[in-house]
Amino acid sequence: MTSIGVLGTGIVGRTFAARLAELGVDVLVGARTADSPSLEPVAALGVRTGSFADAVAHAEVIVNATNGLHSIAALESVGAEALAGKTLIDVSNELEPVEGGFPKPLASADDSLGQRIQTAFPELRVVKALNTMNCTVMVDPSIVEGDHVVFLSGDDAAAKDQARELLATLGWRPVQVVDLGGIDTAAAVEMTMSLWMRVTMARGSDAPRFNWAINSG
Amino acid sequence: MTSIGVLGTGIVGRTFAARLAELGVDVLVGARTADSPSLEPVAALGVRTGSFADAVAHAEVIVNATNGLHSIAALESVGAEALAGKTLIDVSNELEPVEGGFPKPLASADDSLGQRIQTAFPELRVVKALNTMNCTVMVDPSIVEGDHVVFLSGDDAAAKDQARELLATLGWRPVQVVDLGGIDTAAAVEMTMSLWMRVTMARGSDAPRFNWAINSG
Repeated sequence: MTSIGVLGTGIVGRTFAARLAELGVDVLVGARTADSPSLEPVAALGVRTGSFADAVAHAEVIVNATNGLHSIAALESVGAEALAGKTLIDVSNELEPVEGGFPKPLASADDSLGQRIQTAFPELRVVKALNTMNCTVMVDPSIVEGDHVVFLSGDDAAAKDQARELLATLGWRPVQVVDLGGIDTAAAVEMTMSLWMRVTMARGSDAPRFNWAINSG
Repeated sequence: MTSIGVLGTGIVGRTFAARLAELGVDVLVGARTADSPSLEPVAALGVRTGSFADAVAHAEVIVNATNGLHSIAALESVGAEALAGKTLIDVSNELEPVEGGFPKPLASADDSLGQRIQTAFPELRVVKALNTMNCTVMVDPSIVEGDHVVFLSGDDAAAKDQARELLATLGWRPVQVVDLGGIDTAAAVEMTMSLWMRVTMARGSDAPRFNWAINSG
């Protein structure tokens, strides 16, 4: 893997930053502004930091690790021109907080964040991937046993190949990658977050990390 | 297992009828009317048939294998009084047909057929289960390898025990049963049908049956 730009400095962005740096990948993590205090823990890892625009300028392949509720705004701050021709691996989820309750995925059968990003930035090549698991599993699938899976949704075959290359760099084996089709399939993937949260609750906070697998006959 | 009533004569109802009869369970399959031609293939299996009301009268535990779009109407034809105190294992899905496209699950983060059935019939004890897989897997989990799972959602602990007993009769091992909590968790389970359909398409029509598993660290 050559270079990666990461958007977002939350737990997902920091986990990607640490793992990619450990793997020797040239990575730049961007926040809303280049002087955001949220970049300090990233810089402390020895990883380069900057604005969202700096992260996009840094690489052909960008990981969207922002909070899904703010992803479109983050991309708008970069601008369509700078995004044109780039590949965005969208690992985010759009979860509406619920007072005293369970966060609600906003995806429905014909709408998803992945699709809305693609529609908002037609020249960006969006691949939805990795949003169906804890970020520690995203970046190191070996922490879960067996052939658990990662789903790919996207309209651009070359961008999907770049996604596969990033996945391989992180340790995903080809048998674990399930290509669902176009970006319209991102809705199905994002909708599963409700079950992911219920299973997380049912297993309890001390349970080891998990991921979905597809067992076959 | 003592007796089971099955509502519905589609592929799901017929698959339950055949399997329960094979297992020596006393089963009665109901249709909208006792003389419905849809009951003929069921009767040909040597299984007793009747109306929806006959199936409910037949047993304490009822399997809802009707098309989810018509489940509430089917239960209304039986009436709240006859349903009071019964356990309904709701294996159905509510999928809206889409012209030239993909059927759309109608569940969303705070709404599901399981919940609507429970709300419409408060004295019925609803347990959502088994709707996340092909009906051949529902009735014989041994056709898929490993510890693939079935989810339980329901408000009544005794009804869940009855669901567990039915599952054990069909061949499900305790380790495969994941209790998610109350009937409000049925929304999460029903929402996954979009991904189930996408994975079914991605695997191709000749692929062996599959089911979700939860791989762990």
